[in-house]
Amino acid sequence: MALALPSGPFLYPVLDVGLLGGRAVGTAVAAVAAGGVRIVQFRAKGLPDRRLFTLATEAAAAAREAGVLLVVNDRADVARMLGADGVHVGQDDLPPREVRRLLPSGSILGLSTHGLGQLDAARDEPVDYVAIGPVFPTRTKADPHPVVGLEIVRRARQRTRRPLVAIGGITAENARSVVEAGADGVAVISALLGADDLTEAARTFQARLR
Amino acid sequence: MALALPSGPFLYPVLDVGLLGGRAVGTAVAAVAAGGVRIVQFRAKGLPDRRLFTLATEAAAAAREAGVLLVVNDRADVARMLGADGVHVGQDDLPPREVRRLLPSGSILGLSTHGLGQLDAARDEPVDYVAIGPVFPTRTKADPHPVVGLEIVRRARQRTRRPLVAIGGITAENARSVVEAGADGVAVISALLGADDLTEAARTFQARLR
Repeated sequence: MALALPSGPFLYPVLDVGLLGGRAVGTAVAAVAAGGVRIVQFRAKGLPDRRLFTLATEAAAAAREAGVLLVVNDRADVARMLGADGVHVGQDDLPPREVRRLLPSGSILGLSTHGLGQLDAARDEPVDYVAIGPVFPTRTKADPHPVVGLEIVRRARQRTRRPLVAIGGITAENARSVVEAGADGVAVISALLGADDLTEAARTFQARLR
Repeated sequence: MALALPSGPFLYPVLDVGLLGGRAVGTAVAAVAAGGVRIVQFRAKGLPDRRLFTLATEAAAAAREAGVLLVVNDRADVARMLGADGVHVGQDDLPPREVRRLLPSGSILGLSTHGLGQLDAARDEPVDYVAIGPVFPTRTKADPHPVVGLEIVRRARQRTRRPLVAIGGITAENARSVVEAGADGVAVISALLGADDLTEAARTFQARLR
């Protein structure tokens, strides 16, 4: 059975384990789920695989318990080992077509793009959604891609019928503008994880999307 | 069908793409195969996954062409995508039990150990061979484990009936002593890849093992 992305404008927290500010990743999953989130992404960069696996196991257990979809950043092997719901890959990761073949059928597969050229090139990739960004300036990545802005989100919306996830520098204040530009999903990292109360912050974010 | 490791003392070149000195990895596979090698390991550390995948694809094609077994370092996902013959994991990599489940049945799975404690702990892991080392001082890794020496290879031989692969600082000069200490396989990196003629160097190495 194919897993479905949440309908309507949805919040898509990227739980980067390097940005959890001392929270356990399972706690963070439970907290955003309590705030009404229906899909989360687990992201861990630069860790030894064994540690990544331990943390991803914790995230997967919490996601299952909370009934939210869990997408693993980059790693199809880990997603498959844990029975996660999907994988998100970037332009420098393993090819989407190969990742798709490794995953159970019906898994969610997402792909990052950083402009209309990559968006167009993704047309023939077997993915379920396409992310585009960074929409706004972001400090989450050490070496970010150039900001694309809301105009590119609008043009991306005109060029693809696939679910479109906007990412990069999105805050509760600008989230609505991203949805109005055509995004189905709004990926958030720093502006959410920097909050003291993740549940409350997730709720506030989502209220702004509607 | 289970794939079998080469019988008798065998040379096991670890083709680290960072140490190929300008050679293409496919060329290196073909060169050592021409020197009589029957199994090679593909290793790429610190590269973006897409690049790793491209290089591993090249190595797999060359290995198939030459009729040698190809083991992929660390990455079960890549090994599976390419139909490689096996995977080698370290202590900080994904758990061997999970890697085994991801691989087609009959695949070769190897595990690095760095002392008798880890060797004993590997007893219940579903692996086909255990590596032990570094046997001698090595400069291949930036942050190497403490040297175990030939005595630990001898003691390892007494403690496991599994095929034992010795690794770390092995040269054509000391390779015979490693086999005499009980190693079935002799993994080589720098001492082989530093040679001008890989085929000739592989031949010389193997002559010393017998």
